[in-house]
Amino acid sequence: MMTLYGYWRSSASYRVRIALGLKGIEVRHIPVNLREGEQLLAEHSKRNPQGYLPVLELEDGTRLTQSLAILDYLDATHSNHPLMPEDAILRSRILAASLIITSDISPIQNLSVLKYIRAEHGQEDAGVKKWSAHWIAKGFESLEKMASPDTKFFYTDTPMFFECCLVPQIYNARRFGVDMDRFPNLLRVENACQSLEAFKTALPEAQTDAPK
Amino acid sequence: MMTLYGYWRSSASYRVRIALGLKGIEVRHIPVNLREGEQLLAEHSKRNPQGYLPVLELEDGTRLTQSLAILDYLDATHSNHPLMPEDAILRSRILAASLIITSDISPIQNLSVLKYIRAEHGQEDAGVKKWSAHWIAKGFESLEKMASPDTKFFYTDTPMFFECCLVPQIYNARRFGVDMDRFPNLLRVENACQSLEAFKTALPEAQTDAPK
Repeated sequence: MMTLYGYWRSSASYRVRIALGLKGIEVRHIPVNLREGEQLLAEHSKRNPQGYLPVLELEDGTRLTQSLAILDYLDATHSNHPLMPEDAILRSRILAASLIITSDISPIQNLSVLKYIRAEHGQEDAGVKKWSAHWIAKGFESLEKMASPDTKFFYTDTPMFFECCLVPQIYNARRFGVDMDRFPNLLRVENACQSLEAFKTALPEAQTDAPK
Repeated sequence: MMTLYGYWRSSASYRVRIALGLKGIEVRHIPVNLREGEQLLAEHSKRNPQGYLPVLELEDGTRLTQSLAILDYLDATHSNHPLMPEDAILRSRILAASLIITSDISPIQNLSVLKYIRAEHGQEDAGVKKWSAHWIAKGFESLEKMASPDTKFFYTDTPMFFECCLVPQIYNARRFGVDMDRFPNLLRVENACQSLEAFKTALPEAQTDAPK
């Protein structure tokens, strides 16, 4: 059985949990407490020199990092419920939309970035919240325009690579007080996702390390 | 013939130019001047609702965005000089290394982010340079540890997806005064790349919109 090192509220871990659920793959979950800095300990650096989550450890001990690279691996090795279509153009468009979340929103609000703007730019809670909400809203404005009006999910009729990225980002957006009513297309896709078992079991609050 | 909308000094445009060169694909280059804000004009929003570069326009008018998604498309449709290996684990590792650059370094120094920290956090030139250099060095520290000692390039003996990302990021690192001597493995890979024609023709200074 594979092992997923993650954290209940980490967006990147949440993406991988959804993909595992869609593929029907059971893994052992080992929590790494981001708030207590466990990702910075030597034990975790051995798993991932970058000190980030998630890490997927295969049965032979091989460790994979970066959520999108893990999704790519899972899709290449488990053909049921494809996360990417065959068509090269649609595939590129799904990947582009995913990257708006995973490159242009999420890393700018990484814990290490938020720590930097507190320590070096003198930002306090209000400034940190404004920063995070700004980059989320900016990315969502683009995505809202890009959504297909004719499909149940963002570009397709089954949830794919993109939906694994979108749902955790919306969860995170609410934490930072982003007004989601401005993004009806994104909410429509989120709604379609949340009725599915794979998305329910991946919810942060459903994880063993979430506060009770 | 395809059209690439780019900018001489944009890292993301530079990545795509390298990939096109490795694949031997000729395109029409149309510059969009980032410094003058041409990416924010309605003309460019029609090409990419996100207002970012690069955009690859196919012969039928289809537009692709996000450099990694463009690389994925080029690799799916042009089988010569593969940018990704067949092996799912190696593929995932190459993608993970690429994402350290394209998610965890590059977007944090995007022009819009630098503008924000100037306007909202009162940062001036020194603060902006320190910020950029910090995130580049942080990402490069991880990559330096991850490089394979046994291959000519980062993980392989031909330049692939990762090298399309690394070389532009090193170019950018020098602009921000990052001491590259700390990263001998990355410099070794860069050296191996720079002797190749595809990397030479993709250089920022070789573009028609570069200052003469």
